Amino acid sequence: MSAPTPVDPVALTADLIRCPSVTPEEGGALQHLQTLLEGAGFDCTRVDRGGVSNLFARWGKKGAARTFGFNGHTDVVPVGDAAAWTADPFGAEVREGRMYGRGATDMKSGVAAFAAAAVDFVRQTPPDGAVVLAITGDEEGDAIDGTTALLDWMQSEGETMSHCLVGEPTCPATMGEMIKIGRRGSMTAWFTATGKQGHSAYPHRAKNPLPAMARLIDRLASHELDQGTDHFDPSTLAVVQFDTGNGATNVIPAQCRAAVNIRFNDLHSGASLSQWLRREAQDVSRMFDIVIETEIKVSGEAFLTPPGELSDLVAKAVEAETGVTPELSTTGGTSDARFVKDLCPVVEFGLVGETMHQVDENVPVEQITQLKGIYARILADYFA
Amino acid sequence: MSAPTPVDPVALTADLIRCPSVTPEEGGALQHLQTLLEGAGFDCTRVDRGGVSNLFARWGKKGAARTFGFNGHTDVVPVGDAAAWTADPFGAEVREGRMYGRGATDMKSGVAAFAAAAVDFVRQTPPDGAVVLAITGDEEGDAIDGTTALLDWMQSEGETMSHCLVGEPTCPATMGEMIKIGRRGSMTAWFTATGKQGHSAYPHRAKNPLPAMARLIDRLASHELDQGTDHFDPSTLAVVQFDTGNGATNVIPAQCRAAVNIRFNDLHSGASLSQWLRREAQDVSRMFDIVIETEIKVSGEAFLTPPGELSDLVAKAVEAETGVTPELSTTGGTSDARFVKDLCPVVEFGLVGETMHQVDENVPVEQITQLKGIYARILADYFA
Repeated sequence: MSAPTPVDPVALTADLIRCPSVTPEEGGALQHLQTLLEGAGFDCTRVDRGGVSNLFARWGKKGAARTFGFNGHTDVVPVGDAAAWTADPFGAEVREGRMYGRGATDMKSGVAAFAAAAVDFVRQTPPDGAVVLAITGDEEGDAIDGTTALLDWMQSEGETMSHCLVGEPTCPATMGEMIKIGRRGSMTAWFTATGKQGHSAYPHRAKNPLPAMARLIDRLASHELDQGTDHFDPSTLAVVQFDTGNGATNVIPAQCRAAVNIRFNDLHSGASLSQWLRREAQDVSRMFDIVIETEIKVSGEAFLTPPGELSDLVAKAVEAETGVTPELSTTGGTSDARFVKDLCPVVEFGLVGETMHQVDENVPVEQITQLKGIYARILADYFA
Repeated sequence: MSAPTPVDPVALTADLIRCPSVTPEEGGALQHLQTLLEGAGFDCTRVDRGGVSNLFARWGKKGAARTFGFNGHTDVVPVGDAAAWTADPFGAEVREGRMYGRGATDMKSGVAAFAAAAVDFVRQTPPDGAVVLAITGDEEGDAIDGTTALLDWMQSEGETMSHCLVGEPTCPATMGEMIKIGRRGSMTAWFTATGKQGHSAYPHRAKNPLPAMARLIDRLASHELDQGTDHFDPSTLAVVQFDTGNGATNVIPAQCRAAVNIRFNDLHSGASLSQWLRREAQDVSRMFDIVIETEIKVSGEAFLTPPGELSDLVAKAVEAETGVTPELSTTGGTSDARFVKDLCPVVEFGLVGETMHQVDENVPVEQITQLKGIYARILADYFA
């Protein structure tokens, strides 16, 4: 029996780009992957929730102690200014070694690379364990019915992953230079201070909410949240809004609003920071006798997969395939790794994301092949 | 020779109300007064500047050591919601003892009362000295070409007043209860803080102007300007504006603006407070490395005519005519007395101003007569 033909990750990327899967549209992308994976013996389940389609694929035994998982998404952000593109955003045109299209870097190439690596791997060297692909169609949207839906479904079905790699672009400029082992958390708090309107000539007859809000904002902005940790930069608080909407200078306004955005490391949680913010608002409220309402939205908790087995595995594969020693970083915004970390150790590694979300998004074709090589080596080493 | 008929201040008020003298229109009001005053031997001069008409009238010798002056205005604020009036705003209708019309209290009745008192006085008991009426048509507007124009003209012509009474309404609720011997100053400062826009996840790459502005506003609002003086309430600072106009929570804005309004007593001047405000802004600017621009407008300086000859004279007349002992006060907004105080001691006394600037502005007819009586007694006592 001759060895099966390896899956070409470049052709697969092109196939996926040609599926117009702008969130929440599936666009044929998950179906294309499902056909490929089922052909290689993967058990596939479509996990649909809230109008979003997701794909769970497993090769090997359910609940195997050693189950390596890949996580990624096939949905893409909108084209934006279509007229500004020099290539069809859903055409996958290759020019001077680069493939153009929405999702070229974020992250149809990443999904194609790990799907191709996984299919080749299970065909060529069937492992003692399982390989799982958890691919969502809702990462660029609200992310409520995407990876979270897959993880909920996995838990209810007894599906597991013992380690997971998220294939998002992670390298700032050079292929191989960065692995993400954690991400800062993110939250926003809105404060509304309410007093009593009045004439500015008679401030004792009014209750001015502005001095109270200025004090609160000064206290929050002056507070050092921490000095950073071994793997994280210091947490930051940015005051982003402060508004009154009062056009007059002889009127003390009844109300004002302010907002702060916090990016926090693993010394904090959304809950601990919410408690601090509410306590500060309460203190100032009492001090100034001004009602201050606080509304908080935690978009993601901080997480860290401490350097160890998983990051070593990925770093070794990256170095072997690219010659570059990757930095273990926790910089950047949020990703679906913030959900996966509740299930198992997770790190992120993918190609260079320079043109993500931009007009003429594109990827050097050779990076796709290189990425497949790295993912293949990770699988081989993991099950060796 | 029979005594001349006294001037009826109620009829004169009605005549003036019928002149539609909404700032800057003269509306016939000053002309009507000029005719009356010239008939009684006053030298009248129309001092017109910047499209505004003012009237200077003197009985007696120019530059007389003892020259009593009255100051007032015939211009009125607009009618406002004409449909809401139950009487013609320029009709001077009398209903249940009250005369209705724009300017009924502010302050055609006051002008009529002092003009009537002055005419009767010089006719009946020609004084050893001079009586001056400085009547402006620009008090309710910018006040640039009104009393200031009259004072400029007086200086250039060698005209003087040794004491002056401004006939604005001064009584909060009961006729006779309040004489104003000073007014607080008023000023507004606008601050614009400018930094550098950026992503809220990377505050170190941006320069956020909001914490700097919050600190500045907190410092200004927390500062006790003074504890009041013998004749003044404590000075007040009201924060009236604080705005960013940034809708996003993931963007640090480049700029924000705030404004404070200060009402200050005679311990301060517009210049001393401007210096303080600019110094505070500079301190905070240096502390936060944020550019802060400061723009200041002083609308009026504080002034005080310490209790003494003039206030005693007025208080005695008020008490004799009304039975009420007037309080010497410095409360309220600004008035043209802020200009007159540079020339001579000045106090303010007039009737109850409850309906000033309102729909259905009206005055109890008997208050007009009472006011003329008070002004007449002041003249008699002054020259006795």
